[in-house]
This record gives sequence, structure tokens and C-alpha cells, in this order.
Amino acid sequence: MQLPREPYLLTPGPLTTSLATKQAMLRDWGSWDDDFNALTAGVCQRLLQVAHAEERCVCVPLQGSGTYAVEATLATLVPRTGKALVLMNGAYGQRMAKIMHYLERSCVTLNTGDYRPPTPAQVDEILSADPDISHVAVVHCETSSGILNPVEAIAAVTARHGRRLIIDAMSAFGALPLDMRELPCDAVVASTNKCFEGVPGFGFALIDRTALEGCAGHSHSLSLDLYDQWAYMARTGQWRFTPPTHVVAAFAQALDQHAAEGGVGGRLARYTANRDLLVAGMQAMGFRTLLAERWLSPIIVTFHSPGDPRFDFHAFYRLIKDRGFIIYPGKLTAVESFRIGCIGQLFAEQMQGVLTAVREALDAMGIADGAPRPEDLDPGDF
Amino acid sequence: MQLPREPYLLTPGPLTTSLATKQAMLRDWGSWDDDFNALTAGVCQRLLQVAHAEERCVCVPLQGSGTYAVEATLATLVPRTGKALVLMNGAYGQRMAKIMHYLERSCVTLNTGDYRPPTPAQVDEILSADPDISHVAVVHCETSSGILNPVEAIAAVTARHGRRLIIDAMSAFGALPLDMRELPCDAVVASTNKCFEGVPGFGFALIDRTALEGCAGHSHSLSLDLYDQWAYMARTGQWRFTPPTHVVAAFAQALDQHAAEGGVGGRLARYTANRDLLVAGMQAMGFRTLLAERWLSPIIVTFHSPGDPRFDFHAFYRLIKDRGFIIYPGKLTAVESFRIGCIGQLFAEQMQGVLTAVREALDAMGIADGAPRPEDLDPGDF
Repeated sequence: MQLPREPYLLTPGPLTTSLATKQAMLRDWGSWDDDFNALTAGVCQRLLQVAHAEERCVCVPLQGSGTYAVEATLATLVPRTGKALVLMNGAYGQRMAKIMHYLERSCVTLNTGDYRPPTPAQVDEILSADPDISHVAVVHCETSSGILNPVEAIAAVTARHGRRLIIDAMSAFGALPLDMRELPCDAVVASTNKCFEGVPGFGFALIDRTALEGCAGHSHSLSLDLYDQWAYMARTGQWRFTPPTHVVAAFAQALDQHAAEGGVGGRLARYTANRDLLVAGMQAMGFRTLLAERWLSPIIVTFHSPGDPRFDFHAFYRLIKDRGFIIYPGKLTAVESFRIGCIGQLFAEQMQGVLTAVREALDAMGIADGAPRPEDLDPGDF
Repeated sequence: MQLPREPYLLTPGPLTTSLATKQAMLRDWGSWDDDFNALTAGVCQRLLQVAHAEERCVCVPLQGSGTYAVEATLATLVPRTGKALVLMNGAYGQRMAKIMHYLERSCVTLNTGDYRPPTPAQVDEILSADPDISHVAVVHCETSSGILNPVEAIAAVTARHGRRLIIDAMSAFGALPLDMRELPCDAVVASTNKCFEGVPGFGFALIDRTALEGCAGHSHSLSLDLYDQWAYMARTGQWRFTPPTHVVAAFAQALDQHAAEGGVGGRLARYTANRDLLVAGMQAMGFRTLLAERWLSPIIVTFHSPGDPRFDFHAFYRLIKDRGFIIYPGKLTAVESFRIGCIGQLFAEQMQGVLTAVREALDAMGIADGAPRPEDLDPGDF
């Protein structure tokens, strides 16, 4: 089957980007040249502005995926004698704990399962009992379930105990407001290919300048040493090692579009509209979201798989892909689920399109509606 | 001054790529989707074929710059109780030693200065005296000076001692022949944006399968754990973390062009012709190469800076850039130099063009010829 265009990506990133963003990759840049250094400096400055972080933070970009930036931030900010409390309610929290294990640095975890959010009271209790904990690490939007964790409340309790906070805001930053003037945290980590709608190839961390200045020698890795990356870039304007030049150029273009759409507010409005359209349409077909409305992010939504025994995710995926849309598998341990993203260059037309594709896929599979097995529903308010 | 197009990059990479390679980035790929997995698998298979390594090696791609792939290879292959001998004659050898220091693993070095090659006799002597050395690491083309190190001879002496060899072939692989059927080495590391003429964004290592199978748990880093990357990819067909999808697509296109040009042989012929044209033209203007002809690589050539006191590299660079060409600064400690690359989508027309630009730049600076200060020339055969 010949598609009119490549499929739309309803995934948590890499996602569908604009043609203008991709076209920005149609030239080559010398990575040592002033023109490219200016491009990098502009990108960093604009990222700081998005978080209102120009005053107290620096932006350190890092080649690689978002996970590299998370590992680099943990390794650079948590001293070798430090101890981290990692809040886990999904794959990305678990990944931070795994990184701490690789780093051979002390780490305790608060595991609230597949999707329940950590509460400030739980964090308060752990920090009260363990004065050795120097840092708390939390995921803003945990795309495993799509939940939006209460980072502001976590930040407040962490600050009250005089500990440092690191936020993995990978899939949230750019669409969810983060104001570093008011939010007590040492670092916010994210990447190009989420809510800023760039193409994948590097991540970045916005880091409190004073905190970073004390971090020479912390990193376990040359490539992932954010202190060294920052110090070198501050001195020379250049990345230490070959940057993904085309990806940087695309990101500069994507940031223009982010600003033109009204920045964080504009993007949040569109993604929220996408989500609301999606959730209403799916509910009309009998589907149920994993989470109660107040926990739903405008980033990605997890739906219970239909209870009908004829449902098979791979066939469902293929039928929807044949109609021009790529959705995402589930990542839960206890119940069957799948995910549909709301971010990227997606508008009402695409959300209507995926709803039609879902309806046609159910019909093709002989499934009347998307209602899950009742026993899979969470009796709590999640 | 409005240029007719962006400048040609006469640098060791990122370099000038073809329009077709860049146009391959004009679509978005789902990183979890079968179509993208097939793209990755095809790229890996073709890289193995280029090195005749299909039988005994696997190809493990890794997000990030080439240095990430070097660090990951050292960390994954050299056990925590291992010891490396790093051969250094420039920045990239020094970088491998720095990585070993970060890794906190035993390391000794043979430092032959800015550009003299390590000799097999020197390596033989060190390995004879130190049975604890488990691995030898060498740079194939050291772009600091442009020298082509004698990797085959180093490989032979390393194998004779029963030690393992790791080759950083970053700027050589794809244009310099490497036959893994005959070359006794455990790993060859390279990246997309050198002789394969892709855009920057990931590196890769061709690793002896048997050697890699014993390397679980060696890595200091989750992101840089090549064993884990390989095992996950072998199981799922996917990269562990978000790959630079557009860069991968561009690289697949670049590999098509590499094959169409006649593979390694075709590319070596063009780059050699570029170098010969460049060197002859520069010599005609009085410039002198740092190295004697037999050590010159067809990758990048280091020239002594003109001895004329009116010479200023930054002004020279700017004058040449204004004419549409970006050259590269020197990286030597003892003498003033600069570099001009021969790789990328460059042909006789561009090499003639840069020679004209160099002549015009000298004229604009009031410099008669490129002759260096006699006292900067090496009296030896280098």
C-alpha cells in the first residue's frame, strides 16, 4: 500500500516535525566555525529563556539521546560521596536508578509502581529519616503511563530539607511551564525531539551555575562530563567533540516555530486540545484511560487494551499504520495497554484521523468497542 | 558578502556531504517501528561488509560523537582488571589515555610526540617488558598531524604477544582498506561523518563477537555500554535509547553513494587525487607539508604556517572562508601549522578552488609565498 506521505508519529518522540525544521538540515556546517558557534549559543540562550533561567542557570547541550543527558547530569551533579533518592513510577525513574547503580554511587528509591505518583509526604518522610541523601531525582512527565508527576510539590519538600533536586523533564519541557526563578531545583534535563519538536540527536541540561561550578572531577566519563562540556564551551564557544551539526540547525529552526506558536503557552494549548479530542473520541468508542483525568498529561495518554479476546496489539498497530499513523505500545507491568501521543506537528485533523483509524482497526478485527476488562481498572482515583 | 552556497568544508569532519544525503533527512521515522529497524540493520550489515568482518564481528552503533564510541569501546572491551597500552602521536591518542584515566583503569602510554609514528619495535619492547598489558589502542589516521599510523605492523606485533588491539579508525575507515579477516584486532571504531560522508550524530564499533560476548558488566556507563547496546539490539532490532533517526537515514543514503563510487577503493582514489592536487599546488606556492610524502594520509594534510611575519591564521582563515572554503587550524604543540582536508564531497574543482583562495589570501596579506621558517622544518624523514 502506497501512503500519501510517511506516517504521522503519535509517539513520545522522535515525533512528527515540520518540513521547515527538516529543511534546516539541508546545509553542512563547520563545527569549529564562528557561524556554527553562534547557532549553538543562540539555542542555549533561548532554552534558558523558556525556563526563565537566564539569571541563575547555564545551558549545557550534550550529544546523544536524552538518557545520555540524564546520566551526565546525575554523574556531574551528584558527588561521588553523595546519595540520591530516585522517585520511580515507570521506566524513566527506573532508568535513573539503574544509572546510579552504574555510577556506583549511593542511591535509594521510592517505587510507587506502574503509575501512582510519589507524594510529598512520602518524600518528606524519607528525607527526614536519612540525612545522607544529598539529591532527589524525579521525572516530570513519566511517559511510561503518561502521568504528570507533581514536581512543584516535590521541589518544595526537597528544598525544605535543604537537599538538591534534579528533574528529568524530557517529554514535558517546552509544553509544561517550568519557572526556574521560583522552582527550587539544580537541574532540568530535556532533549530536542520532544515538545520543542526538533529532530533527535542531542539533549541538554539547564543547571544552576553555582552548583555546576563545584562539580569538576565528579563525572565518571569523559564524554558525559557536563562540567567539562560547559567549561570548554564557555571558553571556546565550541562543543568539545563533534556536535550533530544538522540536528542543531534543525533545533534552532524548531525553536523559532516554538516561539511563533506562543512559546510554552501556545504549545500547551495545542497539545491539550489534541489530548482532549483524543480522549473524548476514544471514550466514545468505549476505551478507558489508565489514569483519572487530573493525572493525564497533554503529552501521551495510556489506554487500557480492549477486553475483547480478539484484540491483538500487533495487528491493531499494523492496521493503524496502514492508515498513516504510528502509535506506541504499552509499558506497564500489570495490565495490557497501549499509548497514543499528542505532541509533535499534530493538529485536530491528525487526531481526528487517528480516531477514524482506530475505529476502522476495531472493525477489521471484529471488535465492537474498546471497553477493557473490568478487573483491569484501578479502583482508586488514578 | 553573499556566498553562492555555504562554504565547502575542508576539515576532518563534519564535512561537505551530498545533497542526496541531506535530503534523506526530510522524513520522520518512528524509532520503534519495523521500517526504522530495517534501516539500522542494513547500515550495520553494510559496515561489516566494508571491513570484510561479517564472519567474526558484530557492528554496534552508538548515539553521540565518535569519541563516545571510542570511550564505549575501551570501557566495554578492557576489563576493570585489564591494562591498556595507548599509542599517542597526537590529540586522539592523548584522548584515549584521558578516557582510560576517567575509567580508572590501568594504562601506560607510548608518546612519540606531535607526529612521529609508534614503531613496531617500540611496541614489542613495551609488551615484552609488561605482561599485564591486555590491550593496545592505536589511532589509524591521527588527524592532529594527518599521519597514517602503521596499524598493520602494530597489529602483528600485538598479536604475536597475544594481546588485544583496538583501532580508532575514525577518520580512515571507509577510505583506507581494513580487512578484518587478516587484521588481528578486536575492534575498529569509526563514525558517520568522515570517509562515509554522512552527517554527524552517531559512531559505531565493529567488534569481534567472541570478545564482546565476554564483556557484560565491564562498562562504567549505562549510555556507553556497548555490550548492553548490542545485546538489546540483537534481541529487539531497536536501539536502547532514542537514535538520531534522521542521521541514520542520511547514513544509509551515504552508504549507497559509497558503494556506487566503488567502495573503499573508489573513495581512496578520489581522496588521494584530492590530496595530490592540493599538495602539489601548495608546494608550488612555497608551502611545505609537515610530514614527508610516505607518511601523508589522503584524509587531511598539515602545512607549516608561512614564515612571513605578516601571516596571521585567523585573517587567513577569514579570507579563505570569504571565498567559499573552510579550512582547519593546526593542533601541534611545537610549530605553527594549519590543516586542509581532502575528504567529503570534494573533487578537483574544489581543490583547485581552495588553492586559488589560498593564493588570493596570501596576496591580500601581502605575503609573497608560503615558505615556512627553516628552523621549523623537521630534519628527520617525517
